[in-house]
Amino acid sequence: MTRLPPQPLAISLGDPAGIGPEVIAKCWDNRDRFGLPPFVAIGDGRSLAAVWDGPIEVIDDPQQADSAFDAALPLIQLSAAESDLPGRPSMVGAHCSLDSLELAVGLARSGSASAVVTGPVAKEQLYAIGFSHPGQTEFVAERCGVAPGNVAMMMVGPSLRTVPVTTHLPLSQVPAALSSQLIEARGRSALRGLQRNFGIPDPRLAVAGLNPHCGEGGTLGREEVEIIEPAIAALRAEGWRVSGPHPADTLFHDSARARYDAALCMYHDQALIPVKALHFEEGVNVTLGLPIVRTAPDHGTAFDIAGEDRADPRAMAAAIRMAAQCTLNRNSG
Amino acid sequence: MTRLPPQPLAISLGDPAGIGPEVIAKCWDNRDRFGLPPFVAIGDGRSLAAVWDGPIEVIDDPQQADSAFDAALPLIQLSAAESDLPGRPSMVGAHCSLDSLELAVGLARSGSASAVVTGPVAKEQLYAIGFSHPGQTEFVAERCGVAPGNVAMMMVGPSLRTVPVTTHLPLSQVPAALSSQLIEARGRSALRGLQRNFGIPDPRLAVAGLNPHCGEGGTLGREEVEIIEPAIAALRAEGWRVSGPHPADTLFHDSARARYDAALCMYHDQALIPVKALHFEEGVNVTLGLPIVRTAPDHGTAFDIAGEDRADPRAMAAAIRMAAQCTLNRNSG
Repeated sequence: MTRLPPQPLAISLGDPAGIGPEVIAKCWDNRDRFGLPPFVAIGDGRSLAAVWDGPIEVIDDPQQADSAFDAALPLIQLSAAESDLPGRPSMVGAHCSLDSLELAVGLARSGSASAVVTGPVAKEQLYAIGFSHPGQTEFVAERCGVAPGNVAMMMVGPSLRTVPVTTHLPLSQVPAALSSQLIEARGRSALRGLQRNFGIPDPRLAVAGLNPHCGEGGTLGREEVEIIEPAIAALRAEGWRVSGPHPADTLFHDSARARYDAALCMYHDQALIPVKALHFEEGVNVTLGLPIVRTAPDHGTAFDIAGEDRADPRAMAAAIRMAAQCTLNRNSG
Repeated sequence: MTRLPPQPLAISLGDPAGIGPEVIAKCWDNRDRFGLPPFVAIGDGRSLAAVWDGPIEVIDDPQQADSAFDAALPLIQLSAAESDLPGRPSMVGAHCSLDSLELAVGLARSGSASAVVTGPVAKEQLYAIGFSHPGQTEFVAERCGVAPGNVAMMMVGPSLRTVPVTTHLPLSQVPAALSSQLIEARGRSALRGLQRNFGIPDPRLAVAGLNPHCGEGGTLGREEVEIIEPAIAALRAEGWRVSGPHPADTLFHDSARARYDAALCMYHDQALIPVKALHFEEGVNVTLGLPIVRTAPDHGTAFDIAGEDRADPRAMAAAIRMAAQCTLNRNSG
């Protein structure tokens, strides 16, 4: 990168038995080719050593990361009771992943790190040790003192950004969960996030419909007329550039994507199918609405391939680059 | 094309005020570049002349199309009461589009045409003149003596084929509309269609889940466990190669698509978002389960740009090529 964030980035290794340590190590290996700024990994170094032969420099303070970064992967070491084997998730590993997440967020909150990038965690094991948040995003929000309803998840690929209004709900519960108020709130989060994190002064938001063909004027579903259109009108009345509702199936091809900066989607798969179909290897999850910058690669722990040297580091590299870019955009704003 | 279907293809012009006449004329203009076999257009020639200066040869019988095709666009003329202006749909135009559809299907049923390609129609105007089918597909099915439940719509792009289990329903009605029986029926239609129309002897079908992350073992929705998995088991018991349920968001990237010949999707947008995101200009709708071959471009009448010489003929060209290829695959089977 030509410009660097003022502080190193803090990267939590995620679950030690997942592919997090491997993709982070591969990012350090390819730091020049990927154009990555200095970062410090946070977690149990044994999970790195289990899958990687490269040099590690254990440091105490992110300030030491800059000078260490050229010759070794800087690591703030968190000891787990025992090392997990790759591909074998455990409660000990889940506890370690939670500790590293907590420390990474703390470093960013205090300004010692410029941003947080989070490695993938195992939700089932986290729930087993008493983790009460749906996912890392809600945990980060709580640690930052932000109500979960005021953060939003943005999926970002090189040519498409989407924000889901609802996330981890059964599809049958999506229509009842939608309200004009919720759509407006997510829309505002998306628009402000485009300004703050992406440096777009007057962003354009395209809002997807819920039903096939946007409900065809109410004959194939009335949510567009009753819920979505009023939310769009309210956002426009605030001066935002908002279009829609658009039929979701014709919202994501090349020329359609050129007409907006982000698409607001009504449910999880409506937002994620197009981003992953187009940009599977480079999808980044950016949390909007936080006082800190937080990104994550758009993949899970992939326990089935952990330890086999098969994990693709490009999404992690994209998440690191994006965290740095969002930091710079915020600082210049 | 190196091999040609035995008879010309019959192409209905669709609504005379839509972009159907324009894209069909442009296909004839570019017949060599697009690699198109001889075809005969069916409809009101005035709608062609309104948007195109090229040569038209009015014929009575599809047999005359082969010799005419090099020098002019062969047309079986259906007179409407008066010519519609491009972009101005009317009931007269809807009537004309229905007549041309009916004749095209009749020619294919009788063997005078090898296949039917249908131009886009205006549903609102068709309903106004008493058309009682949801769309052209159901009309064609009835004329072929096939129950609507036994036909299926396949969306086809160069690297992806999808079949929706449910189509034009409000999203809120999708979960209740799904049953193991319906999924099995659509799955069989998809698999047999891959054999018959696409010449794939032992096709692979990937079945998508309904809920985010496929319901995460039942915690985010139980349709996968209760409805989709039993349907997959039943299809496998019949000897078909069926995988899934797969989380829909990770089913459509390059390497995922390489693992199946078609994806069975639970609802309209789940099937159409990925095909149109990846292949908007070339999407083809193929009707499975008919005694005849029927394809259509995956776009509508586009009244907003009709008559402006802006319509892209590539999807129509792809639909014509695919109709010819499906005919050849069936005849060689």
